[in-house]
Amino acid sequence: MQNVKEYIERNEERFLNELFEVLRIPSVSAQSEHKEDMIRCARWLQEALLKAGADRAEAMPTEGNPVVYAEKILGPDFPTVLVYGHYDVMPVDPLDEWKTDPFEPVIRDGRIYARGADDDKGQSFMHVKAFEALVKTDSLPCNVKFMLEGEEEIGSESLYKWCEENREMLKTDVILVSDTSMIGMDTPSITCGLRGLCYMEVEVQGPDKDLHSGLFGGAVANPANVLTKMIAALTDENGRVTIPGFYDDVKVYAPTEREELNRAPFSEGDYKKGIGIAEVDGERGYTTVERTGIRPSLDVNGLWSGYTGEGSKTIIPASARAKISMRLVPDQDYRKIGKLFEDYFVSLAPASVRVKARMLHGGAPYVCPVDLPAYRAAAEAVESTFGKRPLPFYSGGSIPIISAFERILGVKSVLLGFGLDRDAIHSPNESYGVENFRIGIETIARFYGYFAREKR
Amino acid sequence: MQNVKEYIERNEERFLNELFEVLRIPSVSAQSEHKEDMIRCARWLQEALLKAGADRAEAMPTEGNPVVYAEKILGPDFPTVLVYGHYDVMPVDPLDEWKTDPFEPVIRDGRIYARGADDDKGQSFMHVKAFEALVKTDSLPCNVKFMLEGEEEIGSESLYKWCEENREMLKTDVILVSDTSMIGMDTPSITCGLRGLCYMEVEVQGPDKDLHSGLFGGAVANPANVLTKMIAALTDENGRVTIPGFYDDVKVYAPTEREELNRAPFSEGDYKKGIGIAEVDGERGYTTVERTGIRPSLDVNGLWSGYTGEGSKTIIPASARAKISMRLVPDQDYRKIGKLFEDYFVSLAPASVRVKARMLHGGAPYVCPVDLPAYRAAAEAVESTFGKRPLPFYSGGSIPIISAFERILGVKSVLLGFGLDRDAIHSPNESYGVENFRIGIETIARFYGYFAREKR
Repeated sequence: MQNVKEYIERNEERFLNELFEVLRIPSVSAQSEHKEDMIRCARWLQEALLKAGADRAEAMPTEGNPVVYAEKILGPDFPTVLVYGHYDVMPVDPLDEWKTDPFEPVIRDGRIYARGADDDKGQSFMHVKAFEALVKTDSLPCNVKFMLEGEEEIGSESLYKWCEENREMLKTDVILVSDTSMIGMDTPSITCGLRGLCYMEVEVQGPDKDLHSGLFGGAVANPANVLTKMIAALTDENGRVTIPGFYDDVKVYAPTEREELNRAPFSEGDYKKGIGIAEVDGERGYTTVERTGIRPSLDVNGLWSGYTGEGSKTIIPASARAKISMRLVPDQDYRKIGKLFEDYFVSLAPASVRVKARMLHGGAPYVCPVDLPAYRAAAEAVESTFGKRPLPFYSGGSIPIISAFERILGVKSVLLGFGLDRDAIHSPNESYGVENFRIGIETIARFYGYFAREKR
Repeated sequence: MQNVKEYIERNEERFLNELFEVLRIPSVSAQSEHKEDMIRCARWLQEALLKAGADRAEAMPTEGNPVVYAEKILGPDFPTVLVYGHYDVMPVDPLDEWKTDPFEPVIRDGRIYARGADDDKGQSFMHVKAFEALVKTDSLPCNVKFMLEGEEEIGSESLYKWCEENREMLKTDVILVSDTSMIGMDTPSITCGLRGLCYMEVEVQGPDKDLHSGLFGGAVANPANVLTKMIAALTDENGRVTIPGFYDDVKVYAPTEREELNRAPFSEGDYKKGIGIAEVDGERGYTTVERTGIRPSLDVNGLWSGYTGEGSKTIIPASARAKISMRLVPDQDYRKIGKLFEDYFVSLAPASVRVKARMLHGGAPYVCPVDLPAYRAAAEAVESTFGKRPLPFYSGGSIPIISAFERILGVKSVLLGFGLDRDAIHSPNESYGVENFRIGIETIARFYGYFAREKR
């Protein structure tokens, strides 16, 4: 690895300059005026992969934005790694909160400031450069495939279909992804769990129009009052979801597994300070780490009814609505949970109102076993660069495409991310540490060696 | 009265033409571009009152819109009636739902269509014309004072102060108001009760910013979930408000009084059909008429938190808010109820959130005793024109200025309104029956005679 490490060090400035080039392309997938930028960005990556050493690289058209596919195949006797990343970025609003142009990257205090600096151009590009370093030093020990999509921030719709159509081409031993964060530079971690999601929208409909709350108040069921009672009934005083059957498929962790999980350094004081709350709150009998890592949750994401402007308006609103989502854990099935939610929610309604509930979208939870060869290889790579064994980390978040890969391609993903909470992804002034970029490239390059050895 | 009745019949067409003139002035108090129209309308009424026979009429300036004051004083031995009304009207949006121009009155099928046709230009103007009929036929048996304001639809702010400053000038035996409705032309009624109002705005504040519901969901109190639980706890399964002390001052009605109240014709089927609901709902043990007439209520008027746009956004909202109002009945005090609400609401909050509650405005309930001489005179007048004894009617609505008159001027008001539910006040295509206008003028004119006799 010494020559690979030297190659990376020698070329670091060029790597950064190249990253800046791709960061300058405003590839915002949510906004149709950037349609051409998406194509330009895909082509740029295609070229970059060819220059890095791919035998083949294409910007493959889909109904949406192109998927950049590239590969370098050493032969059937070598293990195969499929790299997944995305080149689309989030919108930049509110623009006036950015200290510098989101599409003109600058380095301040050792950090790269730009939209996509971390999520996920910065993290994806580390893979391109790690690949280059291995190829140019004749050290590549695996077949490598790249799949970089342009719709991650808007739901990856084209990628699902594209994966189904290209199953053969995408055959691999593992998928390697850098689109997550570590606990800290002093506390390296690898995300080994993602929660699933079941996102519902509900409506309580009362009278056929807003009514005068004086003339009718007290005699007619108020949809907003009713909705608050129905939502309140979805959880109990112990912070548990009351939907019958909700916990039936929730994986129970052994005391030793829970101990392991709680070994990650966690300061409740810092946690509360970081988000400005006086007390944490959640399911009784579980720690904060467990509540977001291995336990499901139910949150109101949006709530609206009646008059919400300045001052007062005395109405009984005709209807009241809410967006309610549940984070799911293994082995909960979002389709089953959606149905349980709907049945229970509708059953809570009094006869004086009509109720609708529908699922907006869902995704399965994901777990990467820590004894998976690719996970072990990633852990060894992290230990060799960070000097510390990484902690397995159960993220509370969801990346629906990861569980979809398992379903469609029948293969596990390893979530070897190098972001930090401070990177402010999706927010103004997104940034990524120059050191994270450098150490990420080296760690990824080392991964291939460990993985090849694990598979031997 | 025969000559008065003939005078009214003889001049009916002119009365209507004059009403049309004042309806053409777009005196929308809520919109500052109509500032000049307010003054124009006040001057028009000042002139109209002088022509009708007032000794004195003025458009008296306030910090807001002028109050039109007029009087005709016969002498200290005559009883005095102070007429209250308002010349400002509600905005006309949505304009495209009007079949004809809201400020170009037309008669269709015996109804006058225009903004303000009923509320309250039409009803106020009946008083001007009844007064004229009595003066021109030398039949006026009372001193008469007029007080027509231009801010009723925006809270009557200037009028409170104006009344305090003009207590002496406003001395009267009773205030006569036509700004309410009857049950129907076949079921004449006089509003003898108005509920009070206590309007609160509440906020539950959680984290200092919206959080990612995946990363934090289950470990942090969600202000929207918390707010639903807090609002749900404000009422119980019997439809009663749970705020401690809420019912302490509620007047208890004797069984015979409740029987009397329920004697008004009421079809639950028509009621439900009229507003598109399957079932009525409210405090157990009371009828719909009682629930809105003599019982207090608590309604959410507005509710908002988090993401309310299309599709999904996975956040724990930083805060959640609601507008919650309570309709009050004698002898509830809105200041006391506001304090009880605030104390109880704050007590419902878990330690994981911060809570604010404040009163936006309030008003006292009002009751006109049916044995008041002026009520008896109004009832006799209605019986003489409608041929039926009017029913005392407890309206669920609130007119805060009416209870304020009692507080500031120490005098009761009689709510002799001639509107009907179908008049669509505050809505597009407001209208007022030509027959209501005519019979209203005659009834009001007759009131003076009966009142003078009652006071003799």
